[in-house]
Amino acid sequence: MLNKDRARRGLMLILSGPSGAGKTVLSRKLLSEYADMELSVSATTRKPRPGEVDGEHYHFIDEDTFREMAKNNAFLEWAEVFGAYYGTPRAAVEEALSEGRDVLFDIDWQGAQQLKQSAASDLVKVFVLPPSLKELEARLRKRDQDSNGVIEDRMSRARDEISHWGEYHYVIVNEDVEHSMNDLRAILAAERRLRKRQPWLNDFVRNLIRPF
Amino acid sequence: MLNKDRARRGLMLILSGPSGAGKTVLSRKLLSEYADMELSVSATTRKPRPGEVDGEHYHFIDEDTFREMAKNNAFLEWAEVFGAYYGTPRAAVEEALSEGRDVLFDIDWQGAQQLKQSAASDLVKVFVLPPSLKELEARLRKRDQDSNGVIEDRMSRARDEISHWGEYHYVIVNEDVEHSMNDLRAILAAERRLRKRQPWLNDFVRNLIRPF
Repeated sequence: MLNKDRARRGLMLILSGPSGAGKTVLSRKLLSEYADMELSVSATTRKPRPGEVDGEHYHFIDEDTFREMAKNNAFLEWAEVFGAYYGTPRAAVEEALSEGRDVLFDIDWQGAQQLKQSAASDLVKVFVLPPSLKELEARLRKRDQDSNGVIEDRMSRARDEISHWGEYHYVIVNEDVEHSMNDLRAILAAERRLRKRQPWLNDFVRNLIRPF
Repeated sequence: MLNKDRARRGLMLILSGPSGAGKTVLSRKLLSEYADMELSVSATTRKPRPGEVDGEHYHFIDEDTFREMAKNNAFLEWAEVFGAYYGTPRAAVEEALSEGRDVLFDIDWQGAQQLKQSAASDLVKVFVLPPSLKELEARLRKRDQDSNGVIEDRMSRARDEISHWGEYHYVIVNEDVEHSMNDLRAILAAERRLRKRQPWLNDFVRNLIRPF
């Protein structure tokens, strides 16, 4: 049997963690290293911000379209945040998975919980932690010169996000990006090999034990 | 935080599959490669066969001792086969796991099912398949010059064992030992990193989000 006949089912890789933990850097590195991985692009009814590209940062759609899609079960999950709707289009994810490509989600614990309800067995959930809160604060201060009030608000949200670490399969303490990438590579290598992600095995075993 | 403070919990690696699939070779290679992995040694009431070493192949114990241990819940699982008792001593496995060592089990689907009842979250179950039944038969014929009757009986037991492949987390088609070892290395690397096998994370996160 040739390797091309052993097409795997893709997986949904969720990276969560407080901002400043390093999810964005890890996501970019994963996407540039793995040709068979793509970023999930959400649909939203909010207006594009300066620099945001339709189809890349978000699919910008109007409210009627969003409601129609929600009614037709076209979202894996959706939510309303500050008066705008956000959702994960089901078709693009399903297509990628069935064609053996992985889909990366850079989302918070609430998004991860919602996805779990519709796609539990496809999910690989990784939580990215900073090495310390001091380091997290330093990274946030370096990133932008916000006032102390904004930093304090972010630190409080970071604690809230971190409190959900126990809902994830894997936890990475992101002290060193290359070390964290090694962890992610090991996780992907094994998760891609799980029996449930190798649908070709059904035919293979059926043929293997078929009476002559 | 130093790496030595990040002691993981060990895992129970089960290798099942029909005889002739190559479990024994893979087990030996794993044990020689991973210093932090040991083979589970069962206890039995049957008499040692020529060449069998007490404490290496089995712990040979008498029936009174076995019954007493069973009564005291000292076995992870036990069974009676052809009038002799076989069991997996709980203490040795628990000690290894809590000290961050993995325990390897070369057992059939029935043993795997029994272990599942007492230790589900510690188990990593891998099923080893031959590339074809023809290849399996060739390996069995090469191994010993049995009569056709014995080979047919073994092939029938192989089909029965293979029919349980769906109860395992991972399936390896063992065409090439080095390729299979790479699969096992990837599986171990990721499974060892699972959140549930990193008990130190509890303290780490508690300290991380502790108010100043």
